[in-house]
Amino acid sequence: MRWAVILAGGSGSRFWPLSTPTTPKQLLPLAGELSTAEQAVLRLEGLIPRERILVVTGPALAPRMEAVLRLPPENILVEPRAASTGPALVWASFEARRRDPAAEVLSLHADWSIREDAAFRHTATQALDTAVRHHRLVTVGILPSRPDTGFGYIVSGPPLDDVARTVSRFAEKPSAATALDLMASGALWNSGLFAWTADDLLTEVARHTPEIGPHLPRLAAGDVAGFFAAVTSVSIDVGVLERSAAVAVVPGRFTWDDVGTWDALARVRRRDARGNVTHGPVQLFDCDDCVVWATGDPIVLSGLKDLVVVHANGRLLVLPRHQAAGLKTILDQLPPEVRDLP
Amino acid sequence: MRWAVILAGGSGSRFWPLSTPTTPKQLLPLAGELSTAEQAVLRLEGLIPRERILVVTGPALAPRMEAVLRLPPENILVEPRAASTGPALVWASFEARRRDPAAEVLSLHADWSIREDAAFRHTATQALDTAVRHHRLVTVGILPSRPDTGFGYIVSGPPLDDVARTVSRFAEKPSAATALDLMASGALWNSGLFAWTADDLLTEVARHTPEIGPHLPRLAAGDVAGFFAAVTSVSIDVGVLERSAAVAVVPGRFTWDDVGTWDALARVRRRDARGNVTHGPVQLFDCDDCVVWATGDPIVLSGLKDLVVVHANGRLLVLPRHQAAGLKTILDQLPPEVRDLP
Repeated sequence: MRWAVILAGGSGSRFWPLSTPTTPKQLLPLAGELSTAEQAVLRLEGLIPRERILVVTGPALAPRMEAVLRLPPENILVEPRAASTGPALVWASFEARRRDPAAEVLSLHADWSIREDAAFRHTATQALDTAVRHHRLVTVGILPSRPDTGFGYIVSGPPLDDVARTVSRFAEKPSAATALDLMASGALWNSGLFAWTADDLLTEVARHTPEIGPHLPRLAAGDVAGFFAAVTSVSIDVGVLERSAAVAVVPGRFTWDDVGTWDALARVRRRDARGNVTHGPVQLFDCDDCVVWATGDPIVLSGLKDLVVVHANGRLLVLPRHQAAGLKTILDQLPPEVRDLP
Repeated sequence: MRWAVILAGGSGSRFWPLSTPTTPKQLLPLAGELSTAEQAVLRLEGLIPRERILVVTGPALAPRMEAVLRLPPENILVEPRAASTGPALVWASFEARRRDPAAEVLSLHADWSIREDAAFRHTATQALDTAVRHHRLVTVGILPSRPDTGFGYIVSGPPLDDVARTVSRFAEKPSAATALDLMASGALWNSGLFAWTADDLLTEVARHTPEIGPHLPRLAAGDVAGFFAAVTSVSIDVGVLERSAAVAVVPGRFTWDDVGTWDALARVRRRDARGNVTHGPVQLFDCDDCVVWATGDPIVLSGLKDLVVVHANGRLLVLPRHQAAGLKTILDQLPPEVRDLP
C-alpha cells in the first residue's frame, strides 16, 4: 500500500523573528491560511489516508505536530537527534515496511508551498507507479522558474517509459553561471519529492550507504535510539540517490516552492495590485513589492519598495528583499538576548 | 524685571506614533536625554529665574508640565482654548505685567533644539536690551542653514545700533525658489524667539490687532475665559509683528531647530559614523542615514538608507526620510483605530 513520509524536523532561522524553535516555519501560515504542514497532509487526501501518513520530527515539535495534523500518535516518529534526511527517511521507510511489507513510500517536506494540489497528486501517483514498475528510487523534478543557486538540479538521461527518465547526474547548489546553463539545458530542480518501495530503498542503502546501511539491524531489533546514535548524518541525495544506479526522474507539473526566505512569500502568497504581500494589520501607501508581516501592532508603510518588514515575538526586522537569503549572517551577529526569541 | 514665556501648547502629529495628545513632542526626549520643554527651562538658568518663567499650555498637558518643569503652579497658564500664538503671548505678557509692571518678556517655544546654550543666553540678553532701549518688538533671526520652505524669513532694514536692525519685511513659508533667493540675500529665519516689554506689546496690539486688542479689558477684569472666547485666532507674527512699525531684529548666533519632523532628528541628535540616529534597542547592519526609534521591542535593520523606522504606542511606522514632512497626509488616510493612539 501507499504510505507518505512527511519530513517536519527543521527549526531554522530563515523566518526570524516569526519562527521559533517550538513554532518553526512548517507550523506557520506562511503560504496561505493554514500552515504548510497542514497543507501537506490535506494535499494527500484521496491519495494516501491519514493512517498511512508518517511524520518525522524532533522531540520539541512532536506534541504540536500531533495536535495540528490530527494523525494517529503512533504515526509521529520522533527522531532522537537530527541526522539529515538519510537516516530519517530510512527509519520511516523501515517503519512503513514493518507495518506493511509491501509499503510504497512517497516522501515530502512539511514546509513546501504547492499551488496545484491535483497536479501534485497526479505526479505523485506517476512517481509511485514508476517506483513499483521499474524498481527504482524516483525523484520528482520541477521545471525551474529561475536559476536558483540554492537548489540541487537533476540532469536526466534516456527515457524509461512515457513518463520517467533515468538520471544522468545531480548538480547540487551550482554557481549562478552553472545554474543558468543547467536551466537552459533542461535540468530540473531536485525538489525532495521522492517515491520508492521500502524494500528497494533499504536494498540500495545496504549497498551504497556505509553511513547508514551497517546499522539497519538496530532498526530491525527495535533500537531506534541505537540506530540514530550509530549513523552518520547524511542526506538521502548524497548518501543514496547520487550513488545508486537504480534512480529515475519524473517531471512535476505543479508550482513548487520551498518557502526558504521572507522574500519567497512574494512568490507563494497573494500579492496586491502593486506586488505587495501582507499579513495582519498592515497599512500601505504608495508601496511596491514589499513583504510585511504584522502579528499584533499595526504596521504603517509609505513610499517604499522591495522591503521586508516583520514584527513578531517582540522583535522587529526591516531589510531589503534581496538580503532575505542572508538573514542567518545577520542573526549570527546579533546579541543573544535579541536573537533568542522568548 | 525679565520674564520668560514658554509656549508649550501644541499636540501635533508630526512624531506619530511616539507623540500622543498627553505626551506631545515637547515632553519627549527627542533632542537629547531630556525633553525639549525641560531643556527650555534649564537653558534660561542664570538669565531668568524659575519664579519668572511662565508656561502657556492646554488643560490636558498642564499637570504634566507642572510636574516635569518644576515651576510654581501659578506660573502654568492654562489656555481655555488654543487660539494660535497671538492671544497666548498677549495673555502671558499681560499676566507678567500684572505681577511686575516693568516686565520685560522673552518668548520662546517648548519644542526647540538649541545646541549652544551660552550663545542663546547672550542673544536673548541682546534682544531684551534692544526691546528696552528702542521700545521695539524684537525678533531673533537665525542664519538659515538650508532653504527651508516651512519657516518664515525676516528681511532686515537699516541698523538701529551695533546689534539690532529694523525689519524691512517678513516672508512667510516661501516657495523653494524664493527661499533660495531669501537665503542668498541674507534673510534670516523667524525663529519665534521674541523680546519686548509687556507695555510695548500691549500698546502695539491695541493699535494694530483688532482680533485681540478690543478684548484686552476682559484680561484687565480677570476674565481669561471671556478673553479667549472673544478673540479671533491669529499668530503673533501676522497679528502684530507684520503690522507694527516698532519691530527690530537681532541675529541669533546659535544652532536652532524646531524639530518639526522625524527627519529633523538627524540634525539634532548624535549620529553614528554612518549618519544613523537611534534611540532604544536598535541593531544596525550596513545602514546609512537612518532614523530609528525603539521603545521596547528590539529593532534590527540591515542594508538600508535614509529610512525612518519608529515603534511606539503599539504602532509601527516605516517611511523614507524625505517623506517625514508629509506624515500628516498619511495619518489622514489611516483608519481611526490605527491612527488614534491608546
